[in-house]
This record gives sequence, structure tokens and C-alpha cells, in this order.
Amino acid sequence: MALLHKDRLLPIDGPTKEVARDLYDGIKDLPIISPHGHCDPSWFAFNNSFSDPVSLFVIPDHYVFRMLCSQGIGLDQLGVPCADGSKVEEDPRKIWRLFAENFFLLRATPSAMWLEHAFQEVFGIDDPLSKNNADEIYNHIDACLKRDEFRPRALFDQFNIETLATTEMALDDLRHHKTIEQSDWCGKVITTYRPDNVVDPDFDNFADNVMNFGELTGEDTADWIGYLNAHRIRRMYFKQVGGATASDHGHPSARTENLSTQVASQLFQKALKGTCTPKEADAFRGQMLTEMARMSIDDGLTLQIHAGSHRNHSKAILNKFGRDKGFDVPGKIEFVESLKPLLDAFGLEKDLRIILFMLDETTQSKELAPLAGVYPALRVGPPWWFYDSYEGMMRFRENITETAGFYNTVGFNDDTRAFCSIPARHDVARRVDAGYLAKLVAMGRLRLSEAHEVARDLSYELVKAAYSF
Amino acid sequence: MALLHKDRLLPIDGPTKEVARDLYDGIKDLPIISPHGHCDPSWFAFNNSFSDPVSLFVIPDHYVFRMLCSQGIGLDQLGVPCADGSKVEEDPRKIWRLFAENFFLLRATPSAMWLEHAFQEVFGIDDPLSKNNADEIYNHIDACLKRDEFRPRALFDQFNIETLATTEMALDDLRHHKTIEQSDWCGKVITTYRPDNVVDPDFDNFADNVMNFGELTGEDTADWIGYLNAHRIRRMYFKQVGGATASDHGHPSARTENLSTQVASQLFQKALKGTCTPKEADAFRGQMLTEMARMSIDDGLTLQIHAGSHRNHSKAILNKFGRDKGFDVPGKIEFVESLKPLLDAFGLEKDLRIILFMLDETTQSKELAPLAGVYPALRVGPPWWFYDSYEGMMRFRENITETAGFYNTVGFNDDTRAFCSIPARHDVARRVDAGYLAKLVAMGRLRLSEAHEVARDLSYELVKAAYSF
Amino acid sequence: MALLHKDRLLPIDGPTKEVARDLYDGIKDLPIISPHGHCDPSWFAFNNSFSDPVSLFVIPDHYVFRMLCSQGIGLDQLGVPCADGSKVEEDPRKIWRLFAENFFLLRATPSAMWLEHAFQEVFGIDDPLSKNNADEIYNHIDACLKRDEFRPRALFDQFNIETLATTEMALDDLRHHKTIEQSDWCGKVITTYRPDNVVDPDFDNFADNVMNFGELTGEDTADWIGYLNAHRIRRMYFKQVGGATASDHGHPSARTENLSTQVASQLFQKALKGTCTPKEADAFRGQMLTEMARMSIDDGLTLQIHAGSHRNHSKAILNKFGRDKGFDVPGKIEFVESLKPLLDAFGLEKDLRIILFMLDETTQSKELAPLAGVYPALRVGPPWWFYDSYEGMMRFRENITETAGFYNTVGFNDDTRAFCSIPARHDVARRVDAGYLAKLVAMGRLRLSEAHEVARDLSYELVKAAYSF
Repeated sequence: MALLHKDRLLPIDGPTKEVARDLYDGIKDLPIISPHGHCDPSWFAFNNSFSDPVSLFVIPDHYVFRMLCSQGIGLDQLGVPCADGSKVEEDPRKIWRLFAENFFLLRATPSAMWLEHAFQEVFGIDDPLSKNNADEIYNHIDACLKRDEFRPRALFDQFNIETLATTEMALDDLRHHKTIEQSDWCGKVITTYRPDNVVDPDFDNFADNVMNFGELTGEDTADWIGYLNAHRIRRMYFKQVGGATASDHGHPSARTENLSTQVASQLFQKALKGTCTPKEADAFRGQMLTEMARMSIDDGLTLQIHAGSHRNHSKAILNKFGRDKGFDVPGKIEFVESLKPLLDAFGLEKDLRIILFMLDETTQSKELAPLAGVYPALRVGPPWWFYDSYEGMMRFRENITETAGFYNTVGFNDDTRAFCSIPARHDVARRVDAGYLAKLVAMGRLRLSEAHEVARDLSYELVKAAYSF
Repeated sequence: MALLHKDRLLPIDGPTKEVARDLYDGIKDLPIISPHGHCDPSWFAFNNSFSDPVSLFVIPDHYVFRMLCSQGIGLDQLGVPCADGSKVEEDPRKIWRLFAENFFLLRATPSAMWLEHAFQEVFGIDDPLSKNNADEIYNHIDACLKRDEFRPRALFDQFNIETLATTEMALDDLRHHKTIEQSDWCGKVITTYRPDNVVDPDFDNFADNVMNFGELTGEDTADWIGYLNAHRIRRMYFKQVGGATASDHGHPSARTENLSTQVASQLFQKALKGTCTPKEADAFRGQMLTEMARMSIDDGLTLQIHAGSHRNHSKAILNKFGRDKGFDVPGKIEFVESLKPLLDAFGLEKDLRIILFMLDETTQSKELAPLAGVYPALRVGPPWWFYDSYEGMMRFRENITETAGFYNTVGFNDDTRAFCSIPARHDVARRVDAGYLAKLVAMGRLRLSEAHEVARDLSYELVKAAYSF
Repeated sequence: MALLHKDRLLPIDGPTKEVARDLYDGIKDLPIISPHGHCDPSWFAFNNSFSDPVSLFVIPDHYVFRMLCSQGIGLDQLGVPCADGSKVEEDPRKIWRLFAENFFLLRATPSAMWLEHAFQEVFGIDDPLSKNNADEIYNHIDACLKRDEFRPRALFDQFNIETLATTEMALDDLRHHKTIEQSDWCGKVITTYRPDNVVDPDFDNFADNVMNFGELTGEDTADWIGYLNAHRIRRMYFKQVGGATASDHGHPSARTENLSTQVASQLFQKALKGTCTPKEADAFRGQMLTEMARMSIDDGLTLQIHAGSHRNHSKAILNKFGRDKGFDVPGKIEFVESLKPLLDAFGLEKDLRIILFMLDETTQSKELAPLAGVYPALRVGPPWWFYDSYEGMMRFRENITETAGFYNTVGFNDDTRAFCSIPARHDVARRVDAGYLAKLVAMGRLRLSEAHEVARDLSYELVKAAYSF
């Protein structure tokens, strides 16, 4: 028995399913373009084997351990490292058994489908994971991982990845990207300019980071003009050395500002001194989005905005385990007023690409589609995070398309650090889009010939255009 | 002709409907567990006959009379009693005719389905109610009500109710529960601890209530510590005498606080004096949610929070007819920030159960599923009130499942005072869940064997676990 | 090959589609009632030919040019006139080619379906518009437009329009309506009282407008009482001369107030002097909604509220091209608190009709359905603007019906200035409703006989009742 249903996620209705299959067949083998994500470039620089099933599938995957945590299983029991170095479970087999026993908790979640896709397609497993076969499956995966064809570069090639973008902070030296570039392997792994730690006054060690930023670039970053120059220099470095075609910005809100040089400069000085009020910190981040857009017009980098996450919601977890432990939840977001300063400045620029990602689905039909459906500079990013799922993607198309069309969207982002889930996630996106388009065809809202063209656009062409690949 | 379609609410697609029928067949005869509602325990204590069709189906059902009111029919014409005792229509036949004539207004609402379920399944009626057969149906129901098998206890048994929880205020003496307990009837009717009138400074006669609360418990409730002790004592009384396994809290917002004893005590004194500002009253209620959670950890009561209703919206109706007359509408709600104090205090407690109910569907995918999908103490309550409907329930599953899974939900609540609608409502929930699961199976998102197990969990097991039955 | 699929927008499932066809067949030929829109009454007064395809289909249709603009095509390239009179493209053939080449951008949007409906049903075109046939189709439409049967009155008759309401500002002399009334043509084209420019303190030239308002009515409009009298007089004029049965109000928020005469009068004086703060301007508009409701009780005009648009979002476009250039986007909206003053004053009036339109779908199930489902004076208007689409309409029914039923809705509004899209839009609405009702029937939520009755109500009867036609 296969783990995966061959027509999974396609429409239920028979004739419509036929159309969807036809559309899906036309796109399923297109190369994967992954323009935004969090894979570790050292995997491809060193090409070392992944060590064991648990460090591949459980410990780095907060989708998995958050769900187990919600049912009372401690992160320490799952081997998630403590920030203070206190002892956590270290036996991968024991962790795997706990995971297998509780795998049913993930029923009907995207994680279950991604994991089973990897189990079947990458490791050839066809039996549902449970406590009964936990050891057997552990042994099988573990044995595979020791073989060359399961090393990162081989998997990258097997996954049919054409381009994979990682994300590095502005101070990163991009050494791994250099190593990959200089190697004889021809996989394309590029970076993305992510300057949060030198842009966000609330970031730990902001002032020190900005000082290092100056040293790295030879600019006087204690000065507003020098600080902006340092960004220009690092963006160019990321572009030339790491192949970057985009920057990315994780902000709590979508606030933008377009302040005078004098006011911006004063705000920057406050930020350096650590005396910004929360509102001033938000204003400074907002100003920096506008500055980044200005630089994008010059250097062509696509500007990605990931706004609206309330990070590290649990104080106890933050203290014990540190950041990014599955306790990030969506926060408040508003785009129409927030983006106005940026849009009044650069919204009509025809060659600028600003991609908006959101965690609040109510903004799709009400804010994002109307804005992206008129401003040349704006595009709507695909459903992010909790919405990277069948229902999330289907609602996205239903909410966005009628007002913004297809051509103000930018294809799919997997946005993952779970390497084996990349083909699974892109496959889900292609199936959902094929199913959505098939429904349009079946209802007379789109011609079949158009649907074939749009299917290819959504899977491949739009992402290349949006990120200048 | 039957009033009810035998495959009602199941998926339209033929093969999927087959799967849904199969799933539904596996759960339709499971006993009903009704862990939260507003039935009157005196029905089961005295076991008197219901007096007539109108006092069974119209006067107590604000879903019904609000819709008629929206089309210009006065509450007085429907026999809804005036708070000031002025005269309202008293002839039940006349009221029934008005109801029958306007029954078409309820088309495609859940009320229509609940009423027709009761008409057919309880009273054997197979003709749609209209002005033509109003008298005939009145006579038939009225005659039935005079028979023993239509008395409350007989209906309770016939409905296959395993446990029914009612809701009593903190000052209630639970006399009816005692009567039931001491009777020879073995129906399980338990209470729920609902302390709103001694917890909410804005409640009518708050200070007097708190004083009575002290007399009842022998504690000095003019003092913060004594007041908290009084809660502990009453919770224990509700648990031991009324079989309570849960408390319930109807608050305008989901605000929580975790104040120092000193600050909380000062706020309490202001509340007693009636000098709280609206914000302070909200803070006090928020503090009390945290206090209740603390007590739950000790005594094991499940904590239910029903937040976000703007009650008694029409001033004129409130003045003339009093509270709870169908003019309650959803208000603003926010969970992510509001619950943080409580969650920082007790969110990681593995044995605590906090169930969140909501009236704002936008919080489902954005706030509730992400929170319940990571905090061990949190569960998401079923769709409440206006969302206790086919579309409401289906959207709930679609919005919640992918992020919180099935196991952070708690089965169904009928939350009703319309006794005859209880089997109808649970039947609707089971059909919707069977249909939802069948779609997952048909789309390859869940295996059939898993779906059978989940169907039983959603209808029966999860509610027992969540409420410790 | 036809441009339009004969079963477009009907349910996909075979047996359900049969039911939908049956329902649709029963309503598709009902006369069109268009109770709210923005057609130009001079079309029907003068009955001149439309000049060319571009001025019929492109230049006046912001749905079309906004989408082209979003992909970098300038409004000037599309012939949209500049406010400052600078030169824009004037060659309609060149504009048409640009439009045809980019027609694919509208795929799966309502605009594509409306346009193709007009192409096929009005102009007999059966080939999809593209750059290959741009000239051919231009020539064909252009030739048609020169024939008598394509003049406005002939199209009006051909479209089977029973009543068409236009919208005129309070200072309008209604000369075109008089001309139509006095002509030998019997098409019913009535006006609607839209007093925004004498009600909104933020409107350009508010004080001058109010002075003209006084001259027109012989009232002292520098005085609050005289100003209100002027409204009464103009409402009567619109009713008697222009056949108005409704007023319409486009406000940024749904705020209402019920101030004392003294406070209202003071606010009015501030408004005249141009010294209102933004909040005071909002309060004044809110007071005027309550005043309009009071007048409606006397003169019977239905009160329409279109709230929640952030108009002219791009400063650069506003400066260069003026208002209404596709840069209006939904803003914040809230009904429950905002409407309370008005509802406390007049919400229980049985003969008052207030129709609420919204741009925020989250208010449908949470605010509008609960309010309209209990207050006799309230009705929910159909999905407006970006939601005048398949998904928008389907979500509307799914969100509204279970709580407010069918009878608190008011049929369909096309709300358009694109004359040829009127039959297309009503056809879409009828198809969506037939499909929605068919699904209810197929799922046992409504009997077929009821569905037929409801289909007619939604297409024809409810709009007549709501607007007193």
C-alpha cells in the first residue's frame, strides 16, 4: 500500500478531477524554484551526511514538535536543545519512538503529508509510521542516510531543484556560498539579504551589530548616511558574491514611513543609543523599508516583507529554549494605511518588485488583492507558515484571484528549513493550483487552454519573473 | 414525505457521500454528552410535563423570536414576557399561528433544521409547518406533551443522553441537582460553576452578591484572600454536590491579568465599592480568569471561557424586555495578547484544560489554532452560537485542523436551553464531521481507518477527556 | 465556439447542476431591477450612440484599467483623462490593441466574464479577444455602435430592464430625468438622493455647496434647522421629479451619532467654518445618517449606507488623474458599536429600511447577519465592489444566510457605470444564487419547492420590497 494517495488534493468530482490530473501532469515535473527559505548553506558546502532520522525530521521541525508539545510532551523529551545548555533527551531512538507513538496527532495537517511524502518518495517507505514500526523505520532511514545518494547535494539534484535561495543576515560572510560556487557541483544555491539585526532597534545587540556593519563595509555607520551606504555595499556584496536577487524583512508590523533625512537621522541616533520608544522603533523599521525600496530601484533586488508575527509568545519557553521554538503566533497586521508612505514614494515604479506576505487571511481579499491589483510595484506572496496548506492555499486563490488576477502573484515559496519537505511542499502547491484551475474550467470561468498556461505560470514562470531568475 | 432528508448535510458528491454515510453510521448512535448548556435542572428534578408547544418551542428560543422580530413582529406578539410586567400575548394558539405563518423566514437556518428534527423525530410530524396546518400541528404536539413519554426524564432517556451539564451561578444552592441525585432516576445531570455575578464588577448587585458569597461560605469576602477562599469552597461544593467538572466564564473580552496580590487586592476593593473604571473592571475580570486557572490546577475543574459578546445591544429592548432577548451580537475579541498573562503563568501546565470559545471566525486560523496548537493547557471549543450551524462548523474544521489538529479540539457543545434541539444539534455536528472527514479521505488527506477513529474521537472521546467525564 | 460556457457558475456536481439549471431557468428571464448604480442619465435623455469601443469598455471601467495599471501600463496609455488636462493617448484603436494584448491579465476575474458576456450577448462575438483579433473585434463593435439598435434606449429595452436607478448629488437639477419622463420612451430611469457633497465636511467646497443648497431650496442653510429643512425639500424633489425611492451615503466609516440639537448645531457651524477635526467631521457625518433615517421614516425613502472605503489611496494618481481612478481600497469598518446610536433611535421602526453595504467580509457573519437578523429596520445589501463576483457572492450567502435568513437581504445591486455589464452582472448573481440554492437542496437544507420560491425572491421580489418599487 502506498502512503500517498495518487490523486491527493485534487478535486473530488470525477470529471473535474480528470481536468486537474491533466493540468497537474503538465507541471509536476517542472524544476523546483525555491526563492525564499531557510536551508543551511553549509549542507551544500560540506555535503556531509545528515546524522540520523531525528535530527533530520524532528529536532529542526517546529511544526512537528509544537504539536507534540501542545499535547503535553516536553521539548526536552524531543531533544530540542536548551538555550542554557541543560540536559535534554539525547537518544535519537527514544525520541523517534515518542514521535512515532504520537504521529497520529498530526493527522490531516500539512506536516503529516510532507513527512509521508518524504518517507515514501525519498526513503521508499510504504507503511504508516506508528509505535509498532518505529524502530524498523528508524533503522531504514538511518541506513539510507549513510549512503552517498542521500547526501545534501545528491538530494538537491534528485529533487530537481533549479534554484534554492537561503537567507543570511547582513553581517554574514557568505563563506558557504563561496565554497559552493567554487566547487565542481553545479547546484544553484543563492543567498538573500536579510538585515533585521542591523535594521530593527529591538534586536539583541542592535548597536553592536551596526558598529560591526561599519567595520565590514568601511563606512561610518554611526552616521545615517554612512549607515545607508553600508547597506548599499552589503546588498551589492550579497548580489555579487552570494547571487542574491532579493532582500527579506521580518517586521512585527507592515508600517512604513517616508521621513525627512533629518528626522530619520535623529531616529537612527536614538536607535543606536537604545532610547527609542516602541513606536519610534516601529517608525525606524518602517523608514528602513522605504530606504530598502529606494535601494531596490537602483540595484534591482526584489523586496520581500514578512510582517505580522508575534514571536516567542511564551516567556518560559523563550527563557529556557530560546527563539524560534514553535511559539510564534500571528499578530495584528494592517496594510492599507501602513504601506501608504512607501507606496506614495515608490508604488508606481514599474520596475520595482515588493512582495507582501501575510499571516492574516482577512487581509487577502480586503487589503492585499485591492492594493496589488492596482499598484505596479506590489505583488502578493504565497500563503505563509500556517497557511502553507491545502485549505490555506485554496482560500488564498479564492480570495486573491478575482481582484488581483494571477499575474500579481509570484508562485510558491516553501520557506522551510526542513530540506526533505521541499519537493513535498512544491508538489502540494502544484496540486492545489491544478485543482483550483480545474474547478474554474469546470465552472466555465477559465478556458482549458488558458488553464494550462496559467498552471505553468503559477509553478514556474511567475516566480522567475518576480525574483529575476 | 419525511421532513428530514436522510442524507442531509453529507457531501454532495456520490462516492464521497458513501464514505460519509459509512463514517456517520459508526457514530450516529453513540450516547450524547452535553458538557455545556443551559437546560433548567428543575425539569429533571420535578419531571413535570411541558405546558404547551409555544412555551416549548417559541418563547424560550431567541433564535426563533429574533428572526421574527427582524421582520417586524413584536416580541410581545410572540408572548415574550416584559420585564416590567406589561401585558403580552397570552394565547398560545394565536402565537403558534403567527409562528407557523412566518416559519418560512427561518429557511436554511439551523433553527429550521433543529425544529424539523424535533417535529419529526420527537413528535412524528412529517408535514412542513405552515399557516395551513398550524392548528393541526399545535394540537398534535399539545396532546403528546400530556403523555408520560414526553416528560423531561423520558425524553432525556429517549435522546440517549449520557451526561448533561447545566450551568448555575455561584450562589445557587443546587437544590434541583440534589433532588435528581436522590431520585430513583439514573439520568446524569451535573452542574457547572458559573461565577459571573461574583466575578464581574459590572454585574448588577456585584457587591451584594459578594457579601452573600461570604455568608454562604463562612469566609470574609470583603477581603481578597477570603474572597478567593470562598471561590475555592464553592467550586468544591459544585464539584461534590452538583458533580461539576468545569467552570464557565462569560466575559466581554478575553483579557487576562497576572497581578501581584497587592494590586489585585486593591482592584477588588474598588470593585466592591463600585468605583472601577471600565478598564479596571476588565482587568479585574482578567485577573479572575488567572485565579480560576490557578484553582483549576488544584481541583481539576476544566476552565471554559466564552468571550466577546456585546450583550443587550438594543437599549429599548433591554429596558422593556430585559436581558437575553436575542439582541446579543458578537463584539471585538483578541486572544494572542489578551491571554499572554494567563499563558505565561499556566499555559505550559500539562494537566490544566482551558477551553476557548469564540464569536469571531477570523480568530480561528490566526489566533486560536496557533495558540492551541502549541500550549498544552489550551483547547479550542466548538463553534458557538451563530456558528453552531453547517457552514459555521465546516469552516471551523477547515480553519482549525491544519494547524491545531483534531486533538486540541473538544467535541461538540450544544449550549442550549431548547431541550428538544439537543439530539438535533448533536446529529448536525456528527453529520458535518462525517462529511468533513469523508472529504479528507476522498482527497487522500486522511486514511479511512483513521477517519473512523477520528469520527468517534470527535463525537465522544474528546469531550470525555476534555471535561474529565 | 461560444465565449460563454452555458452552465457557467453552476455547481460542478452533475445532479446538483441539474437542480441549479432548473432553478436558474425559472429566474433567468425575470426583468432586471437595478436599484443602485451610476449610469449616466443623459444616455437615456439624449439617446446618442456610444462613440467607440474604447469609450464604452475601457476608459470608464476602473476594474479594467486598474488591473492593466498594476502590471505597469500607464493610465495615460489607456486614454484615461488627466485632471490637469495634459495629453493622454487619444487613438482608440491603439488603446484597444493595448487592451486586447493584455486581456489575459483579467483571467478568472469578474471583469473577464462581464466583458465576454457583453461581447457575445450584445455584439455576437464568439472569439476570445487577443492581440490577433483586436482590430477585427474593434471594427465589429464600432460598426454595431453606429446602428440604432445599439443606442442606449434600445439596449435598455433589449436588456429587459424594468427599473434603473441612477445616483445624483443633492444639488443636481435632474434635467435628464425630466427629459426622459417627458419623452415618448417608457423606460423607467429614476434617481437616488446622494447628498455627500452637502453632508461631508471633508468634501471639496462643502461650505459653498451648503450655501447653494440654501439658494436652491429657499432655506437658510447657515442654520442647522434650515439646513435640515433643505434636505427635506430636496428629498421630496428627488422623489417627485426623479422618482427616487432611496437615498445613498458614501461614508468612510459607519459611525452614527444621535446628538442633541444644540450639539449637532454647533458641530454644523464648525463644519461650515471648516474647523472640524477629523473626529468631528466623522461625528457630523454620523449625525447626518441619523437625521436621514428620521426623514426616511417620514418620506419613505430607503436609506443606503456604503461605508468603509479608503478613497484615492495614491496621492500621485489623485493629483494627476483626479478621483475614482481605481485606487480606492477597502478601509477599516465596524458596525456593532458604530450603528448603536442610530439603532437605539430608530432600529425598531418596522417601516424603515436601512441597507448596509460592506467591503469587509469578516463583518458578514459576525456583525451584519446578527444585526440584520434582529433589528426590524436593517437589511444587508449584496456584496459590493470587489465582492461582486462568484466567490464574493457565494461567501456572502454562506456567511449571511444561517443567521439572517434570506428575507433580511435585498436582492442584487449592479452598482455600475458600465452599462453593457448590467445584464452580465445580474446573470452572474442569478447563477450564483441558483447554484447556492441547489446545493442547499442537494444537502437537504431546503426543499426544492422552497428553493424555487426563494430564487424568485432573491432575483426580483426582495429588491422591489426593499426599494418600494
